[in-house]
Amino acid sequence: MQNMIKKLAITGGTHGNELTGVYLINKFKKNPKLIQREGFETIIMHNNLKAMQKCTRYIDKDLNRTFKTEDLNDPNKADYEDLLAKVINAKLGPKGSEHPNVDFIVDLHSTTSNMGLSIVIDEGSKLTWQVAAYLKEMEPRVNIFRWKGDTKDVSFVNSIAKNGFAIEVGAIPQGVLRSDLFFDTEKLIHHILDFIEKLNNKKFQKNYTSIEIYDHIELLDFPRDENGDIVAMVHPSLQDKDYTKLKKGDPLFITLEGEDIIYDKDEEVYPLFINEAAYYEKGFAMCLTQKKVIKI
Amino acid sequence: MQNMIKKLAITGGTHGNELTGVYLINKFKKNPKLIQREGFETIIMHNNLKAMQKCTRYIDKDLNRTFKTEDLNDPNKADYEDLLAKVINAKLGPKGSEHPNVDFIVDLHSTTSNMGLSIVIDEGSKLTWQVAAYLKEMEPRVNIFRWKGDTKDVSFVNSIAKNGFAIEVGAIPQGVLRSDLFFDTEKLIHHILDFIEKLNNKKFQKNYTSIEIYDHIELLDFPRDENGDIVAMVHPSLQDKDYTKLKKGDPLFITLEGEDIIYDKDEEVYPLFINEAAYYEKGFAMCLTQKKVIKI
Repeated sequence: MQNMIKKLAITGGTHGNELTGVYLINKFKKNPKLIQREGFETIIMHNNLKAMQKCTRYIDKDLNRTFKTEDLNDPNKADYEDLLAKVINAKLGPKGSEHPNVDFIVDLHSTTSNMGLSIVIDEGSKLTWQVAAYLKEMEPRVNIFRWKGDTKDVSFVNSIAKNGFAIEVGAIPQGVLRSDLFFDTEKLIHHILDFIEKLNNKKFQKNYTSIEIYDHIELLDFPRDENGDIVAMVHPSLQDKDYTKLKKGDPLFITLEGEDIIYDKDEEVYPLFINEAAYYEKGFAMCLTQKKVIKI
Repeated sequence: MQNMIKKLAITGGTHGNELTGVYLINKFKKNPKLIQREGFETIIMHNNLKAMQKCTRYIDKDLNRTFKTEDLNDPNKADYEDLLAKVINAKLGPKGSEHPNVDFIVDLHSTTSNMGLSIVIDEGSKLTWQVAAYLKEMEPRVNIFRWKGDTKDVSFVNSIAKNGFAIEVGAIPQGVLRSDLFFDTEKLIHHILDFIEKLNNKKFQKNYTSIEIYDHIELLDFPRDENGDIVAMVHPSLQDKDYTKLKKGDPLFITLEGEDIIYDKDEEVYPLFINEAAYYEKGFAMCLTQKKVIKI
């Protein structure tokens, strides 16, 4: 069905204060056998060492928004993370080439939102969707989020390769290592590697034809005043309720003075990334999605 | 019983990424009547504007460890937060003087640990303990933590005044505003102001003579390797269990490889500040405390 995967990359520390990925890579460096499988090579790397050392998301800008093809090719893009993206692209890509150095990228993230075990796919290849479907079968707690982004072109680390996605687990505060979600994330990685091994060896004959996803509709900002200051918070009844249905009349925000702000559209939606710390500066309080089954 | 309180300060943003205090001060600035009471003045201020703008804990060092008397008087202490401490001390203090400019300081914090509604008292004055006891009576969810510190002398913002404490609420990730704990914190502030008003007007005759506290025993670090890297995480069964009894044989940490590390001392303890993000760099995984009733 698919081409063989010869090389896969697991990357962590793309955001330096998301410790799950940082420490999983540490673990795999110490115990490389854990990620060895028959028939393909798995490489591991920390993407933003300097941000990790400072335990901050980034130095100059969000690394996971710097992988647009035009930016990778633009010598005037020279902030710290712009340069880092070019270096990572040279190592794992180059993006868009016929034969990039790796065939699949799994990029490890965490979120302060109560997203549980989430897979974030942008423009998923056929193989990417097959892996996602297998993961969901092996671990029913997994939810699949199809991200349409806050940038026009796909700008994620995993877009360097032809196949791949980000794993997002939460709720985890920035700068914190949570043991339960650390081991949950590791299990997902093992499922991915096992699946690719079986697929390469033609020991997995099933072909998934559909998958349930949460499909990006729009990014919703906090209510703000004329200075841009936040004047309302995520409503207590919505906080931590990622992947739960929101319908007309349900509370959405609450002002600092305690007044409810209601969701007033007819369309039923499923909010994700509710109250994610890193999105305050981007201007998103949450992402509204539609739950659907798509053909893959 | 006590001297009259003529001036009280509520401060927030001591740590620039603890948004509960930052936004409560914003709210009170917009609605100053909320904090007006008969017979005394309440002033409000953001302590570290530059850290707030960057949404980071501090610029050079932790502001809430820069209020030792000798440091405030040392002209060679000239990091950003050292200078800021001297400026705040001149405004609210000076610390140790007979008549500092404010009589009581309430400093607003949040924590990534599941500390609920906590009051952190270091060297509590008679009045400070009375306020704490009143708060606990009005809001039974309040817990009182007596901190013996990671510095020799008291170095907290609230140590500038003769009376005061920090309010610590959690679990809240850094850089996140949580509406439930925002309103809970505001209620505590109103109780404090109401109590001082009643006390000043001699409308409150009760004298609390004892209080239940969690008393600092020791700060416990993560297990680390020879390079200082963390090799074990807070155990899943202990995560989020602040203020819960830990006894010999209970799991404490779990290594990255999944091996349990057991608490092996005879003394029963109550861990607090479990897995607080800001304490990774300080070298604390949690603070062990003893639950006791003390005379006040």
